[in-house]
Amino acid sequence: MSLEAFLTSAKAEAEAALERVLPAPGDPLADAMRYSTLAGGKRLRPALALAFHDVLGPSGAPREEVAESAAALELVHTYSLVHDDLPCMDDDALRRGKPTCHVVHGEATALLAGDALQSLGFEVLASRPRGEAFAPRRAEAVLLLARAIGAGGMAGGQALDLAASGHAHGELRTAGRLKEIHEKKTGRLLSAACELGAVLAGAPAESRRAAAEYGDALGVLFQIADDLLDVTASAAVLGKSVGKDEAQEKLTYVSVYGLEGAVAERERALAVTLERARALEGEPGLLAALAGYAAHRDR
Amino acid sequence: MSLEAFLTSAKAEAEAALERVLPAPGDPLADAMRYSTLAGGKRLRPALALAFHDVLGPSGAPREEVAESAAALELVHTYSLVHDDLPCMDDDALRRGKPTCHVVHGEATALLAGDALQSLGFEVLASRPRGEAFAPRRAEAVLLLARAIGAGGMAGGQALDLAASGHAHGELRTAGRLKEIHEKKTGRLLSAACELGAVLAGAPAESRRAAAEYGDALGVLFQIADDLLDVTASAAVLGKSVGKDEAQEKLTYVSVYGLEGAVAERERALAVTLERARALEGEPGLLAALAGYAAHRDR
Repeated sequence: MSLEAFLTSAKAEAEAALERVLPAPGDPLADAMRYSTLAGGKRLRPALALAFHDVLGPSGAPREEVAESAAALELVHTYSLVHDDLPCMDDDALRRGKPTCHVVHGEATALLAGDALQSLGFEVLASRPRGEAFAPRRAEAVLLLARAIGAGGMAGGQALDLAASGHAHGELRTAGRLKEIHEKKTGRLLSAACELGAVLAGAPAESRRAAAEYGDALGVLFQIADDLLDVTASAAVLGKSVGKDEAQEKLTYVSVYGLEGAVAERERALAVTLERARALEGEPGLLAALAGYAAHRDR
Repeated sequence: MSLEAFLTSAKAEAEAALERVLPAPGDPLADAMRYSTLAGGKRLRPALALAFHDVLGPSGAPREEVAESAAALELVHTYSLVHDDLPCMDDDALRRGKPTCHVVHGEATALLAGDALQSLGFEVLASRPRGEAFAPRRAEAVLLLARAIGAGGMAGGQALDLAASGHAHGELRTAGRLKEIHEKKTGRLLSAACELGAVLAGAPAESRRAAAEYGDALGVLFQIADDLLDVTASAAVLGKSVGKDEAQEKLTYVSVYGLEGAVAERERALAVTLERARALEGEPGLLAALAGYAAHRDR
């Protein structure tokens, strides 16, 4: 299967799974949860979990339940976006071209929607795949996600990012701090997505570790590419070379390494990710293609 | 053991467990998490889990790991308080006589602290008691907590409460709606605390159901007593008969049933809870004493 075909099919599976696990529309909280979760997106995290499940499986679990478990990652990712957009955080009014959750549903409901999306993510992971035989995998899945998104992971990275933004110089804006912020803020969840696929597949500990290491490298790669896109996409679209990150004094790979330096970092990260893909799949396959996509996508 | 001795010892166990599972102090996020979690309180939810574990056990699990699992309920309870106090929700500046989390640590950090406390609750439940033999209980524990606090539980109740507050009359202020709000907002977590104890004890499905039913009744009882306390405690302390609930036009048992009617409802709820305690422990013991305490405490 080509990468494009895989991504299209994984996105469709994830979106069907989200429809199955989200609460029915009709009350303000459910509507806010659905609004933000079903607003589109590449569904990259569920796709990574499904890719690793497929490469390391088969798991013996019903496909729809595997897809639901993978979709839990998207619930948690959406929770983080909803809270990130709130006035007390980034105060963003638009996401993916649509008004953000709190703009449409009010701040209090958006806060609760994010909270409930996090809970729903854990509910789904703790209940799929069903059956006593899969209980150890379910407990492992919850544990790895919880570790990835808590104070030592995503939430911790957001707190570090808060502390670093708006400090034009000094100890909070070093390359080491940049790496730590991104590893926690976005890298840990991407890595958890890969590891979740391995856990769902019932893969041995060694493969599980290799999946997490590939995910770590992929996370770095994605972040460098994102930082570069903020500059290069702005240049094309807005006719100027400064992007939103620079305006907000965000700490990025471009602000730390410069444009050329960041391109070199990206190629270095791609090489690392490809090496880890090779350790898992031998001949270049889906995992290698995902690495190339992460490095060179145009949006 | 007397009720008082049990509550004192459960509180001490829960607080020692919280110290073990919370992140070490020293960065803003960890400090905010610790500030709100270690601010005192009765530790009622962990105490309920420990009570049911003890009544229905023994579980064969190390005591400290059972206490950590029970303490996860307090992490989640604290997350809900931190978010509830935020300016976009109840906008409370004081809790338990101390400045609230966002007043001390800032709104963004308080938001993230609540988020990370929720994740930590699931991390703890998914990892204790340790060992392959307890994996099915861990998965069950996560699932029951997630269901209790998501859109169909605590977060859903908070959303209903938001919708009902400030509407002096009409369909949002009926006795039925009052019951639904409290069942979800506070009752489900109390019920989950009792059920968690049964799950940790490895109790059969029937006992687990009975524990949840006792918890449902106890939740109603606690809420009626709370609503009464808001009036009677204010009367004593403030020298007037109107409390905070009435000022905020909150939907309470007193606003729906009147003072005498609410007292009658409380006695009815106590009778139901005592009956369910009898089904579990036969002769009146710890569970009956907890019901009496819930009904007639003075703070």
